[in-house]
Amino acid sequence: MKKTTIQYRVPYADTDQMGVVYYANYLVLFERMRNELLRQDGLPYYEIEKQGVMLPVIEAVCRYRNPARYDDMLDISGWVDEIKGVKLKICCEVRRNGELLAEGHTVHACVNIQSRRPVRPPETLTALLVPEDGNTANNS
Amino acid sequence: MKKTTIQYRVPYADTDQMGVVYYANYLVLFERMRNELLRQDGLPYYEIEKQGVMLPVIEAVCRYRNPARYDDMLDISGWVDEIKGVKLKICCEVRRNGELLAEGHTVHACVNIQSRRPVRPPETLTALLVPEDGNTANNS
Amino acid sequence: MKKTTIQYRVPYADTDQMGVVYYANYLVLFERMRNELLRQDGLPYYEIEKQGVMLPVIEAVCRYRNPARYDDMLDISGWVDEIKGVKLKICCEVRRNGELLAEGHTVHACVNIQSRRPVRPPETLTALLVPEDGNTANNS
Amino acid sequence: MKKTTIQYRVPYADTDQMGVVYYANYLVLFERMRNELLRQDGLPYYEIEKQGVMLPVIEAVCRYRNPARYDDMLDISGWVDEIKGVKLKICCEVRRNGELLAEGHTVHACVNIQSRRPVRPPETLTALLVPEDGNTANNS
Repeated sequence: MKKTTIQYRVPYADTDQMGVVYYANYLVLFERMRNELLRQDGLPYYEIEKQGVMLPVIEAVCRYRNPARYDDMLDISGWVDEIKGVKLKICCEVRRNGELLAEGHTVHACVNIQSRRPVRPPETLTALLVPEDGNTANNS
Repeated sequence: MKKTTIQYRVPYADTDQMGVVYYANYLVLFERMRNELLRQDGLPYYEIEKQGVMLPVIEAVCRYRNPARYDDMLDISGWVDEIKGVKLKICCEVRRNGELLAEGHTVHACVNIQSRRPVRPPETLTALLVPEDGNTANNS
Repeated sequence: MKKTTIQYRVPYADTDQMGVVYYANYLVLFERMRNELLRQDGLPYYEIEKQGVMLPVIEAVCRYRNPARYDDMLDISGWVDEIKGVKLKICCEVRRNGELLAEGHTVHACVNIQSRRPVRPPETLTALLVPEDGNTANNS
Repeated sequence: MKKTTIQYRVPYADTDQMGVVYYANYLVLFERMRNELLRQDGLPYYEIEKQGVMLPVIEAVCRYRNPARYDDMLDISGWVDEIKGVKLKICCEVRRNGELLAEGHTVHACVNIQSRRPVRPPETLTALLVPEDGNTANNS
């Protein structure tokens, strides 16, 4: 599977009075990574929407290992972990100098933008599961 | 002019590592007040949009007097201060137990939701400028 | 177990261009509920911090059933579901007119605010697990 | 005066149901730029705090010219515009492919982090006002 890593500098806005990044803001970091994950493979998310498909989040999970702080430069990595029917699971890790700060995933449903009915993920998405060596990914 | 006051409890989410409410979040407080200001007069904002008019913000100003903190119960007050042509000015004050914490205003343009062209504010909005005693508001 | 429900009006700020509440913002709703859950039992969170204990989130999970929208009045309910050693699990549900929109939980670690070492939850917290009928809660 | 420009990709998180970046989020963009403005001159903001000085915002102004949208790559530019006594004015512009989307400024007070009393800005900050050609900045 293809992996993407983006870098992100933590602003004051993301912190709370405990002096650390507020827990909800990690889900925004996950989204920033997803945007680049799709773009990297030539399919920016707005293109998916143009093709009439939306990917609303139906589940989000985050486990917090170590706090991120103001001005930290974070590495946010992610990959498409699994596609099952109309569902898509994307994993995410947040690190600072290699140290794991948070990890989690989102599950997305592929739905038609008009009817809001479930649809098969576009091939461009399933192609993300093909591993670098060209074999078909085994997502079990 | 009619004034609205709402109450708002500050969550951790709104604070930053200085231990105070992050400055951008006051503009969200302003919006919460505006929503109730319009609703109070029988014209919730979504009704304005249904009538084909949007009120995008074209200017926002906030002056910060004293910091709001986690768990503070804030009083957020506001009123329509002026309507000039297609523009609308709404003032806002944030207080804690009477003490002024922040004050500011937003200026909105009335635009047609389809054409994005400027339009006259709906009468329901201009009615907000009529003072309590029934006289026409003097907006100077 | 004691349950708390708060009401929350959705501002524009919480929505995204899909026209629904952005997924990360549900975790802020969870926090708003937790604040009142603790206050309701006479132990606002800042009191816990004054007693030298913090409750950082170590896991957050949210499942999204139906989208919340601008100006919706939401009912956000929650309860302490389990206390195991130094960990605390709080469940949360977001509803609109009874319809379930999202549900999830957070797991918190009790840590000493100075040493950041795990500590037993204060009795005031464990007391929340006593069911309404006065029996001791069974958290298994 | 020295000018800094950073680039920023708009996530879904920043948009609202009008399909544009929510107005409060521009103040977060202003902060992102300020962080790099100070870092660029060898004085990251956390260093200022380490020197015992904070720069709380006492005024924020933003004028919205054209909406930014999801996935836009924005150029956020800024500079220290004026230092008067203990106050500091920083200007900011947000552009997309050269087109001005928003402009504004923040005014900061220099205060001692312990006493919260006003103090003179550190020399490292005033040095930012020296224009590129080496002359003393004229802030009129």
